[in-house]
Amino acid sequence: MNIDVFAAHESNVRRYGRSFPTVFTKALGATIWDETGKTYIDFLVGSGALNYGHNNPNILAPAVEYLAGGNILLSLDMYTAAKREFIEVFVDSILKPRGLSYKIQFPGPTGTNANEAALALARKYTGRSSVMAFTNAFHGMSLGSLAVSGSASTRDLGGVARHDVIRVPYDSYPNRAFDSAGYIDYLLGDPGSGVEKPAAIILETIQAEGGMNTASAAWLREIQRICRKYGVVLIVDDIQAGAGRTGDFFSFEFAKIEPDIVCLSKSLSGSGNPFSIVLIRPDIDIWKPGEHSGTFRGNNLAFVTAGAMCKMWSDGQFTAGVERTAVKLQGHLDRLVSKFHKCVEQKRGRGLMAGLKCRSQAVVGRVHDLAFEKGLLIESSGPNRDVIKILPPITITDDELDHAVAILDNALQEQANRDCPSI
Amino acid sequence: MNIDVFAAHESNVRRYGRSFPTVFTKALGATIWDETGKTYIDFLVGSGALNYGHNNPNILAPAVEYLAGGNILLSLDMYTAAKREFIEVFVDSILKPRGLSYKIQFPGPTGTNANEAALALARKYTGRSSVMAFTNAFHGMSLGSLAVSGSASTRDLGGVARHDVIRVPYDSYPNRAFDSAGYIDYLLGDPGSGVEKPAAIILETIQAEGGMNTASAAWLREIQRICRKYGVVLIVDDIQAGAGRTGDFFSFEFAKIEPDIVCLSKSLSGSGNPFSIVLIRPDIDIWKPGEHSGTFRGNNLAFVTAGAMCKMWSDGQFTAGVERTAVKLQGHLDRLVSKFHKCVEQKRGRGLMAGLKCRSQAVVGRVHDLAFEKGLLIESSGPNRDVIKILPPITITDDELDHAVAILDNALQEQANRDCPSI
Amino acid sequence: MNIDVFAAHESNVRRYGRSFPTVFTKALGATIWDETGKTYIDFLVGSGALNYGHNNPNILAPAVEYLAGGNILLSLDMYTAAKREFIEVFVDSILKPRGLSYKIQFPGPTGTNANEAALALARKYTGRSSVMAFTNAFHGMSLGSLAVSGSASTRDLGGVARHDVIRVPYDSYPNRAFDSAGYIDYLLGDPGSGVEKPAAIILETIQAEGGMNTASAAWLREIQRICRKYGVVLIVDDIQAGAGRTGDFFSFEFAKIEPDIVCLSKSLSGSGNPFSIVLIRPDIDIWKPGEHSGTFRGNNLAFVTAGAMCKMWSDGQFTAGVERTAVKLQGHLDRLVSKFHKCVEQKRGRGLMAGLKCRSQAVVGRVHDLAFEKGLLIESSGPNRDVIKILPPITITDDELDHAVAILDNALQEQANRDCPSI
Amino acid sequence: MNIDVFAAHESNVRRYGRSFPTVFTKALGATIWDETGKTYIDFLVGSGALNYGHNNPNILAPAVEYLAGGNILLSLDMYTAAKREFIEVFVDSILKPRGLSYKIQFPGPTGTNANEAALALARKYTGRSSVMAFTNAFHGMSLGSLAVSGSASTRDLGGVARHDVIRVPYDSYPNRAFDSAGYIDYLLGDPGSGVEKPAAIILETIQAEGGMNTASAAWLREIQRICRKYGVVLIVDDIQAGAGRTGDFFSFEFAKIEPDIVCLSKSLSGSGNPFSIVLIRPDIDIWKPGEHSGTFRGNNLAFVTAGAMCKMWSDGQFTAGVERTAVKLQGHLDRLVSKFHKCVEQKRGRGLMAGLKCRSQAVVGRVHDLAFEKGLLIESSGPNRDVIKILPPITITDDELDHAVAILDNALQEQANRDCPSI
Repeated sequence: MNIDVFAAHESNVRRYGRSFPTVFTKALGATIWDETGKTYIDFLVGSGALNYGHNNPNILAPAVEYLAGGNILLSLDMYTAAKREFIEVFVDSILKPRGLSYKIQFPGPTGTNANEAALALARKYTGRSSVMAFTNAFHGMSLGSLAVSGSASTRDLGGVARHDVIRVPYDSYPNRAFDSAGYIDYLLGDPGSGVEKPAAIILETIQAEGGMNTASAAWLREIQRICRKYGVVLIVDDIQAGAGRTGDFFSFEFAKIEPDIVCLSKSLSGSGNPFSIVLIRPDIDIWKPGEHSGTFRGNNLAFVTAGAMCKMWSDGQFTAGVERTAVKLQGHLDRLVSKFHKCVEQKRGRGLMAGLKCRSQAVVGRVHDLAFEKGLLIESSGPNRDVIKILPPITITDDELDHAVAILDNALQEQANRDCPSI
Repeated sequence: MNIDVFAAHESNVRRYGRSFPTVFTKALGATIWDETGKTYIDFLVGSGALNYGHNNPNILAPAVEYLAGGNILLSLDMYTAAKREFIEVFVDSILKPRGLSYKIQFPGPTGTNANEAALALARKYTGRSSVMAFTNAFHGMSLGSLAVSGSASTRDLGGVARHDVIRVPYDSYPNRAFDSAGYIDYLLGDPGSGVEKPAAIILETIQAEGGMNTASAAWLREIQRICRKYGVVLIVDDIQAGAGRTGDFFSFEFAKIEPDIVCLSKSLSGSGNPFSIVLIRPDIDIWKPGEHSGTFRGNNLAFVTAGAMCKMWSDGQFTAGVERTAVKLQGHLDRLVSKFHKCVEQKRGRGLMAGLKCRSQAVVGRVHDLAFEKGLLIESSGPNRDVIKILPPITITDDELDHAVAILDNALQEQANRDCPSI
Repeated sequence: MNIDVFAAHESNVRRYGRSFPTVFTKALGATIWDETGKTYIDFLVGSGALNYGHNNPNILAPAVEYLAGGNILLSLDMYTAAKREFIEVFVDSILKPRGLSYKIQFPGPTGTNANEAALALARKYTGRSSVMAFTNAFHGMSLGSLAVSGSASTRDLGGVARHDVIRVPYDSYPNRAFDSAGYIDYLLGDPGSGVEKPAAIILETIQAEGGMNTASAAWLREIQRICRKYGVVLIVDDIQAGAGRTGDFFSFEFAKIEPDIVCLSKSLSGSGNPFSIVLIRPDIDIWKPGEHSGTFRGNNLAFVTAGAMCKMWSDGQFTAGVERTAVKLQGHLDRLVSKFHKCVEQKRGRGLMAGLKCRSQAVVGRVHDLAFEKGLLIESSGPNRDVIKILPPITITDDELDHAVAILDNALQEQANRDCPSI
Repeated sequence: MNIDVFAAHESNVRRYGRSFPTVFTKALGATIWDETGKTYIDFLVGSGALNYGHNNPNILAPAVEYLAGGNILLSLDMYTAAKREFIEVFVDSILKPRGLSYKIQFPGPTGTNANEAALALARKYTGRSSVMAFTNAFHGMSLGSLAVSGSASTRDLGGVARHDVIRVPYDSYPNRAFDSAGYIDYLLGDPGSGVEKPAAIILETIQAEGGMNTASAAWLREIQRICRKYGVVLIVDDIQAGAGRTGDFFSFEFAKIEPDIVCLSKSLSGSGNPFSIVLIRPDIDIWKPGEHSGTFRGNNLAFVTAGAMCKMWSDGQFTAGVERTAVKLQGHLDRLVSKFHKCVEQKRGRGLMAGLKCRSQAVVGRVHDLAFEKGLLIESSGPNRDVIKILPPITITDDELDHAVAILDNALQEQANRDCPSI
C-alpha cells in the first residue's frame, strides 16, 4: 500500500490522511474498505456529507443511468430537464409537506458558497453591512464565512476576516446563567451599545465544529423574535445539521421557527457530489439576474441524486426508521456517558447528530486512534478538540450501529483503563 | 416545454435561463440539444468549464465505470486510490513535461475556493494583509475573491469587499502609453506612496470577464520580476484561461514565467464535475494540517475524470489538433473583424480564448439573440458587456467550428444590415 | 444682543448656542456672564474642561505674565523652559505622591489625539490590531476614537468606524445580574469564541457621555487582572473623569489599579487651553522619535497653566476643600432624588462627577430649559439623553453650590408640578 | 542648561528636542532664543504654525488684553462675543474679498480634527465610504487622517489605517509623462476598474511632508472638474499651505478653483494657539446639531488672535510685503540651487513655502546640523527625508532673511566641500 505519493506531492494541509494512514477504495452504506480489505464503520461520513450512507442504491442507480445516458452535466443556470425535476421534487417532497415557501438559489456547490450568497443577499436586502454571529460558530473557509466563524485558528487565515461581524454569545454561553438572547435584544435596542443593527443573524442550530453545542427551541424562537423586532434577516446555516442529520429534514423543525434564509449543502446531493442551495423567503429574493453566480451552480448529476434523496422523505418507512435509529443511538450514548463518566463529561447534540464531551483532548485523541485500529472512523470537534463527533449514516442498520458502538465502548474502556483514573 | 417551474421556484438571480429560454437535455462534444430536439453549438461551454466538450468519451467512460463500481465517492482529504492516481497522472503528464514542481492542494471544488485558499496562504506566508489586484479582474463570488475583483456590480455584493486590496492598472490600462508595470514598481519602492507591500499580486493572463483583455509576455515577466524584487507572492488565477483553454495547458506557458501559486478549476475535471486545485511552490506550502479545509475537497469522481483529461495532454495528436484549431479560429475571427468593422472594433484574446470587442452592448445583445435563434450559444463580457466571448470546446471538429462561425457571420451580417450604419 | 451672525455663518453643527441662546462674555469661578449682564452658575464647565473654574486666579496670573513676557508659545516638541517646568511639577506634585511612574507623551492638545496615540502605541506594542471597548463608551470624534465609542449617532460618522473593535458589556450591563468581567475573561480564554486577543482594553471609570455609568472598584480590578493575564494593555481614558473631577486627581485611584496607559486632557491645562498628555508605563514606551506627532503638542501657555494647576494638589487645604464639596454635593443630590422620585430615577456617578437619571428625555429637556432661565447651565447625557450631568467646578464655593442646587430643585419642582404625575 | 528631565520623563517619541539639543525660552518674529542667550532664525516656524512670526505684536497685544480681562476662555460651541467677532472678521477680511461663501465649522483645534470632520461630512453627504487620496499625502495622525496619508511609517501606526482609501498618483507622479488626472477620470468612469466612486478627493496643493511636491494650476482645475463630473466632494487640506504660507491667504487661489471643503489650522490662530476651522460649501453643511463636537472647539483666546491675524490681510502694505519677501526668497533659492547643484537637485514649492531637494538624506542631515550650529532652524521632509523645508515667517524682515540664507549658503558650502564631490 503506497501512501508516499501523498507526502511527496500533496500539500501539507492534508489532515485526515494523516490520522487515518491507509488508502480507501470501496464503500457501501456505513462501511468503507481500504486497499488491504480491512473494513471500517464510518461515523465521520464526509463531515456530514454522506447522511444517506455511501453509494445508497436509491441514489446511485439514477446517477449511473444519467451519467451513462449522454445527458447534459454542467449547465451554469441554463434550464435543464434534470434541474426542473429536482426543483419539482424538492418543492413537493420537502417544502410543501412542511408548509414552507422559499425561492431556491443555486449558488455554487459548496456550503461556504451558499453562506456567502446568503450574507450578500441579506446585506443587499437591508442595506446594512454588519452581521451578527455566534461564539464557536463555523460557517466555512472563504473570507465572508471565515469572518462569521468563531475558531481562532480558522479566523487567522483571513487576515482581514474580522470586519463587520458582531460576535455574540450562543445559547448558554458562557454558562446557563446568562441570558444570551436577552443580551442581544438589549444591545440592539440601546442606541449607545456600540452595536449596529446588523443585516443578518447567522446561526447553526447545533454547532458541530464548535463542539456539538445545541440551541434550545426556546432560544431559537427568541432569536427569531428579535430578528423580526429589529428587521434583521435570520439565516440558518443548515449545512451540517440539515438534510436529515438530526432526524428531521431541517434541523430547525423541532423549534417551529421559519428562518428567512436557509443554507443547505453537504448531504443535499445524497451522494457526496458537490451541491448546495440557498432557500430564500420570496420577498427577500431581490437578486438581479446574474448578480450572483458560480460556474458549478448547474451540476446536473447532483440534481439527479439530490432529487432521489428528497423522494426518500416521502416514504413513511424511511422516516420511521431514521427516528428509531436516533432513539437507539441516544440510548447507546447515555449508557456510555454513565459508564465512562471519568473520561466522558456529557452527551451533546440531538438525534443522529451527537457528541461526547470528554475530559480532555488527549482522551479524544487516544479513543480516535484505538477506534481506527478496531475499525471505526470518528473525528473530534470543539475549540479544544475534546468532543467526539458521532455522525453515523442516518440509514445505518441496527447491526452496524451496535457494532460501531461496541468498538467505541471498547476504545473508551481501554482508554479508561490506561489514563482516566489519573486525571 | 415547461419553463414555468423555474419562474415559480428558482431565485430571481437566474440569468442564462432567461437569455436562452429553452430546456436543455442532451449534449455531446460541441453540440447541445434542447427538449424540442433543436441543436446548438456551444461557444459558452460552461463559462470555460467544458473545454473538452460535453461528455467527452475519453473522460466519460472511466467515470461511468467508477460510479457504477461501488467505489468511494467523497473522502474529504483521506487517502483514496482514485486520488493517488490523479496525483500521479497530474505530476507525470502535466507538471514534469513542463519542468514545473508544485505541491498540490485540494481546497474545495470551486474556483473561488481555490483563490481564497491561495490568498490566505500568501497572507500567512508573508505576514502581510494587503493584496494587489488589477482593474477589470474577476476572481469569484466569495468575499475574499470579490474583494480582488474589479466589477462594480460584483463588488457591491460584498458590503465590505474593498478592504486590504490595492487596485492597480492591468497591462495597457488605461491605454498603451502608460507603463503599468513601471508604475507598480515605483509605488512599491516609494516609502511615501501610501501603498503597502502586499502579500501577493493576483492576476489572470487573459481577463475573461473583464473583456478578454490580454497581458503580453513582456508585462507578465515584468510583474514576476517585481514580485521577486519585493518578496511578493505571484498568484496566477488560471481558472478560466488554464486547463487547455489558450491551447497550452497553462495560460502562462507562452510568457515563460513560473508563478508562485496557480489556481485551476472549471475545465480541470474535464467533465463539468466541480473540482479545483491550488499549485504551490513547495517552500510556500507552510500550511499546517487541516488549517484549510472544505467538505468536497475529496470529490473522487472528479479525480477520475480529471486524470483522464490530463492523460490526453500526453497525446501528440491531441495537442497538434488543439493548435491547429486555434489557428483556424483566429483566422476566422480576423476575417469577421475586417468584414464587420462597423460593428466589431477588434479581436481580443489568444488561442482558443477569444473575443470580439463590439461597438456597443446593444450590438452584442442582438448578435447573441440572433445566434441563439440560429443555433449558437455565446455570451458577453467586459465592464460594458460589449465583448462577445468566443470559447469553443478546444476539441471542436472543423465542421462544427465552421458551422458555428457561419452562424456568427450570419448574425453579425443581419445586425450590420439593421443597425450599425446608424451608429 | 446679536446672534444672527452665528446662524448666518456658523455650520449647522453648532449645538450649545442653540440650547443657551445668548452671548457669553465674562466668567469667574463657577459664574459666567452674558452680554446682558445676566449671571449663570456653570454646571457644564466646558464638558469637564474647567474643573478649576473659569479664570482661576492661581492659574490665570502666571498665564498673563508668560504671555506678556515675550516667551515662546509654540515649540512642537523642542525643549523649552516652560515644558521642563511642567514636567517637573507634574512628576513631583502628581505622580510621585501617588507612587506612579509613567513616561509622558505630548500627543497634540485634544482628548481624541491622546486616545488615538494610546491606541496606536498599544497596537504597536502588542502587534495586534483589535481593541476591546465597552457599551456606551465615548472616546472622541476622530476615526480611531469613534471606532471605540458606543453611541450610534457618533459612530455613524465614521463610515468605517466599526473595524477592529470588540464591543463588550461595561460593568453592570445590561443589568447587575450579568458578570461582565467574567464574560470577557471567558471570551479571551476560549479559542473558539471568535474574539481575538486585543491590543488593549480602553475604558472610562465613569462613562460621562454614556449616562454617568460608574464602574466599581472590584470590576476595575478584575479588568486589570484580565489584562495582565492575557497580556493586554489597559488604557484608562481619564479625559473627563481625571484631572480632579471625581475628587481625586485620577479617577481610578479609589480602585487602587495602575493602568498601563492613562490619557488626560480637558481640565489638564486648568484654564481651558487645549492640552493633553498620555502617560505610558515606561517599558511600553517603545515609540521611535517622531513616530507620532502633532503641531500643537508644544502649547507652552498650557504648560504654564497646567503646572499651576498641578501645584494646587500639593496644598492640603485645597484637597480637603474638594473632598468637602464632593460630600456636600452628594448630600444635595440624595435629597433631590428622594424628593423628586417621580421624575428622577437615581443618582449616578461619584464625587463631583455626578448625574441624575431621570424618567425620560423630556424631563431632562424641560429641567434644562427651566434651569437656564433661572441661571444654571446643565447638560444631558446617556444614550437616551435622560441623565442630567452635574459637573460643578471642584472649586465651587458653598454659596454657589447651594444656589445652583436651589435652582435645580426649583426647576425639578416646576417640572414635577407640570408633568411627572402623568408619567 | 538642564535637558536631563526630558530624557528621564518625556516619552521616547520626542524628536525635535533631539535634533535641536538646547532649551528655548524667548522668541520674537523670526528669532528665537535659547537658555544660553544664543539666537536662531526659525525656518521651521512650528511646522508652519507661526507664519506671522513669534509673538507678532499685532496679534499678541489683543491676546494679553483678553486674557487679563476676565473674559471667557473656553465655551464649547456656546455663543461668545469673541467668537462672534472672529466670524465677522473672517467673513469680511478673508472670504468676501475673495468672492467665497462658506459655512464655518469649529471642529476642535488641531488640523487632524479638521480633516476628520471634513471626511466624515463628505461621507455623510454622499453616502459613500471610500475616499480618494494621493501618493505622498500627509493629513494628520488620528486614524481617519492616517488612512489618507501616504507615508509608510505614519500608516504603520494605524493598524487598520488602510481601509476605504483609494490611493492615486499625485500630479507628476511617478513622472511628468503620466497623466494622473486622466487616469483618475478613467478609473471613475470604468465600471470594471475596481475603484468605487469615492465620497471625496482630499489633497494638498503643496505636499509639505511629502517632499514639497507642487500641484500645477492645470492639474488642480482638472481634479475639480473630475469631482464635479462624478459628484465627489473636493476637500483641500490647507492646513500647512494655507493661512498665508504661499503668499496668498489660501494656497489654491492661484489655480482659481473653489473647493467644496477647506481645512485650516496651524497658522490660523496667528499665535501658535491651537485652532482650526472647516469651511463648507453651504449646501453640503448638512450636519445635525451636535453631530460633530470637540471640547476645545471654543478656544476664545484663539478667536481673538485669529481675528487679529485676519485683519492684517486687509492691509495693502502687509500683502505687498509678503509678496516682495516671496520673490526675494525664490531668488535666493535659485541662486543656491545653481551654486550647489552637486548637493541640491532642485528647488521645490511656491512662494514662501519652499524646499530644496538634495541628493541624499545624508546631505540634508549634515546641512541641518551645520545650520543649527550657525543659528538657523530647518527641518527635512519627503519620503526619503532628502528635502530641506524652507518655511520662514512670511513677516520676516529682509535682514533676517538675508542672514538666514547666508547661514544656509554657508552650511551647504561646508557640506559641499566635505562630501558632495564623492557622491
